Amino acid sequence: MEFDLASGIAVLERTPRTLRAMLAGLPPEWTDATEGPGTWSPYDIAGHMIHGERTDWIPRARIILAQSADRRFAPYDRLAQFHESQGKSLADLFDELESLRADNLATLAGWRLGDDQLVMEGEHPAFGPVTLRQLLACWVAHDLGHVAQIARVMARQYREAIGPWRAYLPVMDR
Amino acid sequence: MEFDLASGIAVLERTPRTLRAMLAGLPPEWTDATEGPGTWSPYDIAGHMIHGERTDWIPRARIILAQSADRRFAPYDRLAQFHESQGKSLADLFDELESLRADNLATLAGWRLGDDQLVMEGEHPAFGPVTLRQLLACWVAHDLGHVAQIARVMARQYREAIGPWRAYLPVMDR
Repeated sequence: MEFDLASGIAVLERTPRTLRAMLAGLPPEWTDATEGPGTWSPYDIAGHMIHGERTDWIPRARIILAQSADRRFAPYDRLAQFHESQGKSLADLFDELESLRADNLATLAGWRLGDDQLVMEGEHPAFGPVTLRQLLACWVAHDLGHVAQIARVMARQYREAIGPWRAYLPVMDR
Repeated sequence: MEFDLASGIAVLERTPRTLRAMLAGLPPEWTDATEGPGTWSPYDIAGHMIHGERTDWIPRARIILAQSADRRFAPYDRLAQFHESQGKSLADLFDELESLRADNLATLAGWRLGDDQLVMEGEHPAFGPVTLRQLLACWVAHDLGHVAQIARVMARQYREAIGPWRAYLPVMDR
């Protein structure tokens, strides 16, 4: 499917509500669960998404739109949430994500982007030239990937509890 | 993690709202999207979950609790949604799932299950004896597996659109 600004935004504006519907009020045995050492819990993932709102998508789009000589993005800190979320409840994180996301989508709408802008390029620190269209598509896909991850992490807490059904639930092992 | 009735129910009661938050009002390019021939769209998955509410979890729990001589479950029709959802909008499916789920959780609560019941067994048509505890854990894990699937199916629509970021988003290929 081609990236489409309106339908991409439709997903982006649903993500904070989706996380809240899935997780708000659940006991910590769900929200702090991981897939093992070095893997992330739903709580960690929420913090990671907040860091993306602050430092990744819109800041990188600004670099592309400025079209200055240096269009190289700052590297993204994939582990920022482990210090930035400290002392915050999951409810705090949802409020923060919702507010940042709303501001970022307002910024995006204000740009009134057309094809002339969507083909503009920036420079990714690892793999070089990327277009604004690819960046915005990645914002959407990144949301969905992490929603899938949260549900998977939670499902796998019952890998043993479901007994022989494990053979029928692909989420457990793939 | 061991299955716990209260924390399992906490997930089950959130699923209809989660699906609504993710999908209600999205254009059909998202809700009818699949991963290719023979795979399911978010719309198909909602219908599949409804069929489970009607024929799988609570009906099978009833068979176990009755402890009659024949405790064999009826096989589950994994493709029922392809005729049962016909003519229904996604909004209809959400209403139906929400209502069935609420009724089923009320039934479950009414049983006031304790360990004496949770160890009772039924007979799965494919793999033999299973406990009520395993069945209920599977209900929860099945929900979460399909939430993960919906998000994955949607994410993969942008597999090409994200360009080189594909290498960084495990949801695209694993």
